[in-house]
Amino acid sequence: MAEHVQSPFRTALQKQEEREAKRAALLRTAVQMFNRRGFHATSLDDVAASLGVSKPTIYHYLGNKEQVLVECLTIGLDQLFTAADEVKGESGTGLERLRRFLCRYAEVIMDDFGRCVILSGDETLSPKGGRKLRAMKRQVDTALRTLIQEGIADGSIAPTDPKIMAFTLAGAVQWPARWYDPDGEIGPQDMSRRIAELLIAGLAPR
Amino acid sequence: MAEHVQSPFRTALQKQEEREAKRAALLRTAVQMFNRRGFHATSLDDVAASLGVSKPTIYHYLGNKEQVLVECLTIGLDQLFTAADEVKGESGTGLERLRRFLCRYAEVIMDDFGRCVILSGDETLSPKGGRKLRAMKRQVDTALRTLIQEGIADGSIAPTDPKIMAFTLAGAVQWPARWYDPDGEIGPQDMSRRIAELLIAGLAPR
Repeated sequence: MAEHVQSPFRTALQKQEEREAKRAALLRTAVQMFNRRGFHATSLDDVAASLGVSKPTIYHYLGNKEQVLVECLTIGLDQLFTAADEVKGESGTGLERLRRFLCRYAEVIMDDFGRCVILSGDETLSPKGGRKLRAMKRQVDTALRTLIQEGIADGSIAPTDPKIMAFTLAGAVQWPARWYDPDGEIGPQDMSRRIAELLIAGLAPR
Repeated sequence: MAEHVQSPFRTALQKQEEREAKRAALLRTAVQMFNRRGFHATSLDDVAASLGVSKPTIYHYLGNKEQVLVECLTIGLDQLFTAADEVKGESGTGLERLRRFLCRYAEVIMDDFGRCVILSGDETLSPKGGRKLRAMKRQVDTALRTLIQEGIADGSIAPTDPKIMAFTLAGAVQWPARWYDPDGEIGPQDMSRRIAELLIAGLAPR
């Protein structure tokens, strides 16, 4: 039987996968630098250097610095949209679904892309980019507010102003972007659950 | 009786008061621009122009842009320290004092200088300035944590991890820096009280 020659040429699929892997590595490196140093203090040269490539390589895969940031923000916001969509389709009282949403929300925030959504002020982007970002953030806020309204309607959440409650909860689950230590003792899932429980039970003993 | 000539020369006190008023106006204008546009997008030229003075006037009264920011942050943090000190000396259970601290904390955040403390990432400053800012923020966090521990000790607060609770509460009362509208229907005092009540009572009906 003739020896089969393993092709040294990559298939279209392999090329596509390689491209995706490179893009993902560049994005992850960029978002971590944005989060650690701030967007303004980060240069794409540093991002490139840390992966041993040149700046034009980043331009090729991702575009300029604002485009890289927009891509990072879009990934983080998509994770929040996914969490909201999942919870919408689930069963349970408003409070039970809100609890699950708060947990997933906080978990997203504790990861790099979600963290970037919180740490980047709208004013970091161009006016147009800022408007788009604000509109996407409003969608997440609307999902939160809807769950609260459903919980109040079915009696599982104490009656209150849904808008003020949504902002208050959002603050609590977004703040880990500044304080949560991924290398600390408590994992993101456990930490998120604890935060959600505190918000549900309140400070006063029951 | 000889007519008394009103001196056109200002007294030392008048000069001092005038100087203070000018300094205060420059700081208030600067902090509002930092909050609205972001620190990086604000130039001291704009701050100067909006008060009809020149940039060297700002340098004379306040120093360079980083020094102006540090001064704004110091004012905001001092307001938080004052709130913490007042509550420390008051009577009441841990929960009652924590409730008051949360209200004042949120109110400070809804004003320009407190808002600036939250909107300015530590990475906006030089490494040395950032370290100093972080140390000052930690002091506020310690005050919050101490009140929680006192409340748990006297039974007015449900037992929990004081560190996680302090971060969770801080997120909720700091977030108004991004969402509170000073021109909206609800004043800062009323809004702060509502937020504190939500956190104390929790989401679940009692």
